[in-house]
Amino acid sequence: MLTAIILAGGESSRLRPLGDKSLQRFMGQSLLLRHIRLLHQAGVREMVVVTGPHNDEAIRAECAQGPGDVAVRFVVQPEPLGMGDAAARALGSVAPDASVYLTQAHDLLDPVFHSAALAQAATQPDAIFIAAQRHEAYFPGGYLIPAEPGEIDGQQPFGVRGIVEKPGEGNAPSRWVTLVAHILPNAGKFAAALAEAEAGDPGDRYERALTALMARHPALALPHLAPAAALKYPWHMLDIMDLLLHSISGQNIHPSAQIAEGASVRGNVIVAEGARLFPGAAVLGPAYIGPGTILGNNALVRESMTGARCIIGYSTEVARSWLGDDVWFHTNYVGDSVIDSNVSFGSGTVTGNLRLDEGIIKARVKGERISTGRNKLGQIIGSGTRVGINASLMPGVVIGRNAFVGPSVILNNDVPDGKRVTVRQDLVWGDNTIQSRPEDRDAFRKRL
Amino acid sequence: MLTAIILAGGESSRLRPLGDKSLQRFMGQSLLLRHIRLLHQAGVREMVVVTGPHNDEAIRAECAQGPGDVAVRFVVQPEPLGMGDAAARALGSVAPDASVYLTQAHDLLDPVFHSAALAQAATQPDAIFIAAQRHEAYFPGGYLIPAEPGEIDGQQPFGVRGIVEKPGEGNAPSRWVTLVAHILPNAGKFAAALAEAEAGDPGDRYERALTALMARHPALALPHLAPAAALKYPWHMLDIMDLLLHSISGQNIHPSAQIAEGASVRGNVIVAEGARLFPGAAVLGPAYIGPGTILGNNALVRESMTGARCIIGYSTEVARSWLGDDVWFHTNYVGDSVIDSNVSFGSGTVTGNLRLDEGIIKARVKGERISTGRNKLGQIIGSGTRVGINASLMPGVVIGRNAFVGPSVILNNDVPDGKRVTVRQDLVWGDNTIQSRPEDRDAFRKRL
Amino acid sequence: MLTAIILAGGESSRLRPLGDKSLQRFMGQSLLLRHIRLLHQAGVREMVVVTGPHNDEAIRAECAQGPGDVAVRFVVQPEPLGMGDAAARALGSVAPDASVYLTQAHDLLDPVFHSAALAQAATQPDAIFIAAQRHEAYFPGGYLIPAEPGEIDGQQPFGVRGIVEKPGEGNAPSRWVTLVAHILPNAGKFAAALAEAEAGDPGDRYERALTALMARHPALALPHLAPAAALKYPWHMLDIMDLLLHSISGQNIHPSAQIAEGASVRGNVIVAEGARLFPGAAVLGPAYIGPGTILGNNALVRESMTGARCIIGYSTEVARSWLGDDVWFHTNYVGDSVIDSNVSFGSGTVTGNLRLDEGIIKARVKGERISTGRNKLGQIIGSGTRVGINASLMPGVVIGRNAFVGPSVILNNDVPDGKRVTVRQDLVWGDNTIQSRPEDRDAFRKRL
Repeated sequence: MLTAIILAGGESSRLRPLGDKSLQRFMGQSLLLRHIRLLHQAGVREMVVVTGPHNDEAIRAECAQGPGDVAVRFVVQPEPLGMGDAAARALGSVAPDASVYLTQAHDLLDPVFHSAALAQAATQPDAIFIAAQRHEAYFPGGYLIPAEPGEIDGQQPFGVRGIVEKPGEGNAPSRWVTLVAHILPNAGKFAAALAEAEAGDPGDRYERALTALMARHPALALPHLAPAAALKYPWHMLDIMDLLLHSISGQNIHPSAQIAEGASVRGNVIVAEGARLFPGAAVLGPAYIGPGTILGNNALVRESMTGARCIIGYSTEVARSWLGDDVWFHTNYVGDSVIDSNVSFGSGTVTGNLRLDEGIIKARVKGERISTGRNKLGQIIGSGTRVGINASLMPGVVIGRNAFVGPSVILNNDVPDGKRVTVRQDLVWGDNTIQSRPEDRDAFRKRL
Repeated sequence: MLTAIILAGGESSRLRPLGDKSLQRFMGQSLLLRHIRLLHQAGVREMVVVTGPHNDEAIRAECAQGPGDVAVRFVVQPEPLGMGDAAARALGSVAPDASVYLTQAHDLLDPVFHSAALAQAATQPDAIFIAAQRHEAYFPGGYLIPAEPGEIDGQQPFGVRGIVEKPGEGNAPSRWVTLVAHILPNAGKFAAALAEAEAGDPGDRYERALTALMARHPALALPHLAPAAALKYPWHMLDIMDLLLHSISGQNIHPSAQIAEGASVRGNVIVAEGARLFPGAAVLGPAYIGPGTILGNNALVRESMTGARCIIGYSTEVARSWLGDDVWFHTNYVGDSVIDSNVSFGSGTVTGNLRLDEGIIKARVKGERISTGRNKLGQIIGSGTRVGINASLMPGVVIGRNAFVGPSVILNNDVPDGKRVTVRQDLVWGDNTIQSRPEDRDAFRKRL
Repeated sequence: MLTAIILAGGESSRLRPLGDKSLQRFMGQSLLLRHIRLLHQAGVREMVVVTGPHNDEAIRAECAQGPGDVAVRFVVQPEPLGMGDAAARALGSVAPDASVYLTQAHDLLDPVFHSAALAQAATQPDAIFIAAQRHEAYFPGGYLIPAEPGEIDGQQPFGVRGIVEKPGEGNAPSRWVTLVAHILPNAGKFAAALAEAEAGDPGDRYERALTALMARHPALALPHLAPAAALKYPWHMLDIMDLLLHSISGQNIHPSAQIAEGASVRGNVIVAEGARLFPGAAVLGPAYIGPGTILGNNALVRESMTGARCIIGYSTEVARSWLGDDVWFHTNYVGDSVIDSNVSFGSGTVTGNLRLDEGIIKARVKGERISTGRNKLGQIIGSGTRVGINASLMPGVVIGRNAFVGPSVILNNDVPDGKRVTVRQDLVWGDNTIQSRPEDRDAFRKRL
């Protein structure tokens, strides 16, 4: 009997102004529900979900919409003491002899990976299995220590004897970083290892416990060859979106959707219930158009996802962007942006998504400017925010929730939640002494 | 023999920067001519038009274009002393035993109302008939005092014994307000009543005279069940437009109009002589496209009227707006606005038509800010005005005639006739030390 | 045996920020190569090209791409001492008894003129032939002195006895100004005349020599009846473009070009190799779309030329403009502008191309503001320049190479090469106390 442990207790503070990581919605479902359904498809029927005090209620409500034949238990992690603490608390509610599959909903793996890993594990019930991904450049994650020296071909499972959390550039014991998809054959033994590792830095308690366990159990890394994505910073929404968009195959247009004559849908596209495309509107896949969303005349949505009931108004382009529900645009360009629910832009407002030097864009997270690793990035905008007409939003700017950005503002700075920024212009008033000559107008008209 | 009295002597000062109320044009004709033609259709052949010194010439010229078999007399009201004074002067030119039908061209009633009312009156030649409209909320008009207590069903004519002008909220004697469409059986007796009422406030002289007359004549209110509209403030142009747009049935596209392949006309739409729609242009009814008007590529006009020879340029949306003649747009959004003749907007200029809080928009009339009752309202713009590129016009702003609004101005304030407003920017000059890398460009191109 | 002399040594300083006059490219070829090919078609096989030290290398490289069976010699004019000096140096490399045809690549004549003139000259081997164009208004050029008094019909060649360079308004000896297309029967004699004229103003040395020669040889003016254009100021690029656009006949769409369903090509248009039109894109001829250029959804290009690999992005209009290679636009209006290679505009940026008074636009050339003679003119922009989003570029502004114009700048002034201009806004920060009511939103939605 295998129990899945789903770690969903993180505070998502680096994801602000967006909400909880696990509850972010893509193509009509949250990452959490998607994850539960994938595990269900892989045969899992027992799950323990670790929540935090800040999101326990919301996580439970979300799980209530999952498959009916899964037993889900909830464990609250009272303080954010890391993955080791979370795992230890979860294991407390699992039978000691059960095997566990420890995962995070906001880590997106190849959907078929879970089934394959569990099938593999069934053939070696005593072994530890951990997902591994090859990184050519240094990445601040948990690096695997191979059991044997020499080159790893990466197509087949390979033996592992430990994990080193963030070894620092140049010190990595391999090119393989673990993804949080770990099959542990005996809950009780793992709980014991975590208890032993409690003394010391909570930051790598989990990895130390796992390494200790590997001394006593065979451990195999399962190469994860497909692209994966994890949700840590807001712009990772775009990475996850990309991954999921590329899973769309063909066109799936709901019978109730209305595609006007002269509108076009090309590529791999889902158009959900009740969505409407007006004449000249275009969707260029991969794309997901949420239920009840309207694309006005000549609007273009490409490589993007919209939530429910969005209005992508007349002559608006949305490119490579993620939109929540009830987002309203009107004659805008929205590129490479993450725009949460109930946001609207006035006509003529533009998301700058490219630096002058076309270099890597930085953004501020928890007070610190960090590289986003992207040379195309628009804005991150929290729910309930309004932007006036003709505003110019600069690349990498983060606008909080329930904020207001006034007309014609050039926004180079972040806007905190609930704040308002407008521009005071130096207007010059005078007499209008100049009049046009009707004959010039007539001449212009003739050229049309 | 019935004589229609048409009150057209008002100063239209609250309609500024637009011109005379009666002369406002919708779908190619002025309200005055439209009104005269409707009365003509209802069988009226004698009309007295009351003008003022300020508009006498223009009103006479307009009437000259009316039906040839109508005798129109003109009476100038020398000073703006109200409706009682206007009616008294008009009655001076009518035979004392004639019946009169007193109306205003800028009050829009159901077009069939006139015929029906006159037919009804013919069955009771001794009775007074006055149009009445039910108002659920208090409205500052002339309230009817029912002849009998009790509920009025509102489908049938009902007896009336007086009118109270603007009784104040809570004091209304019924829910019924009179519309200016009054059939009076005897011109001489009404003239006498008006003469008696001359002493006192000119503001309700008319209503007092009518009430006095009702003591001696049966008086019936004729419920006006269809929507009606009156033109007092500039934004009422939009109400009248709506009413008239909804009278369009089907599509009436002049044979000389050119609809390019890839352009679309949907809903109830009139496209007048010589109008042209370029590829991708769209009209979404109800709409009226005036003669010689051009819709450029991808332009959209919906629920709007344009005058003659307008140019709705490339990628411009005009929504729920009234345009005079020779209005030129180019890549603009124009929503819920009233734009008089010979106005042009530079590319990128936008009419804000919605407050941040999506609440009721105020506008300034004769120096005072008043509620417009609308939560969507753009601007009112007088003839001859030019707006530069990328300007942001805020909701409810009134721009006078022959004015100029400079590029990129955020216009929060009204602009008087003949004034100019531009923005002075604080520009920062320096060396451009940053250059893009061609290889980045190539990478961007590959993503297209 | 006839030798063509092509004057290409000018400094093109009045053409800044554009490059060398002769090397300006239209429809995929430079004016110089086009000229050489036309002369080749007219049978010329010997050419002398006069270069300057600043462009000798580039001119030679360009000529290397010309027809293989033409002998081209190069003569460097060390200092910019005018046309007389240039011609004298060129003649030094021509056999004295050869006839010469002296031309400039940046003067655009009717393409058939060369053949016709040379055929005419062959019938009178002893005569001088010079192209002549009729000007109704005074033009600062070389005016022809007719051999006989009386009216010139202008359809037939007419006798000439001299040229006066820039006689000043009111002093012109005829209405006929010479175009630089001069057939001289004897190189040696012309060289001698130029040597004699060396003393005196270099500004009209050429004309004085020619006049002296005319005393000894019959001279005939050949009326040039078709439109001609010369490239002196940057906006002349648009005149030359117009001339060449009007030479396009029918549609020539390269088989490798992709025209999406819903895109349209109308009028006389060339679409070069690998160009792509996305759905809703439109080309309205006359127009030339360069190789690899992309027109995004709903883009419109009319009466314009693009270079290679341009991106005319979503909802962008390019009207009556010349673009170099690798120019990138995105939701822009570009009208009556000359935009050199590797320039990009941010979304929402607009080229103002019309003065408020719709009058003639001035531009600055070598420090002096001069009339451009155009009432529609956008900007002249040098290569490598970037413009941010929502900028407003005013008519007649010249932006240098490798410059940067920031977002939302209202650009009234020229920008020198390598400079950067941004706007500093006075932002007002506060709390956003206003929230929208969801019920209002729902009401708005219902109106869609």
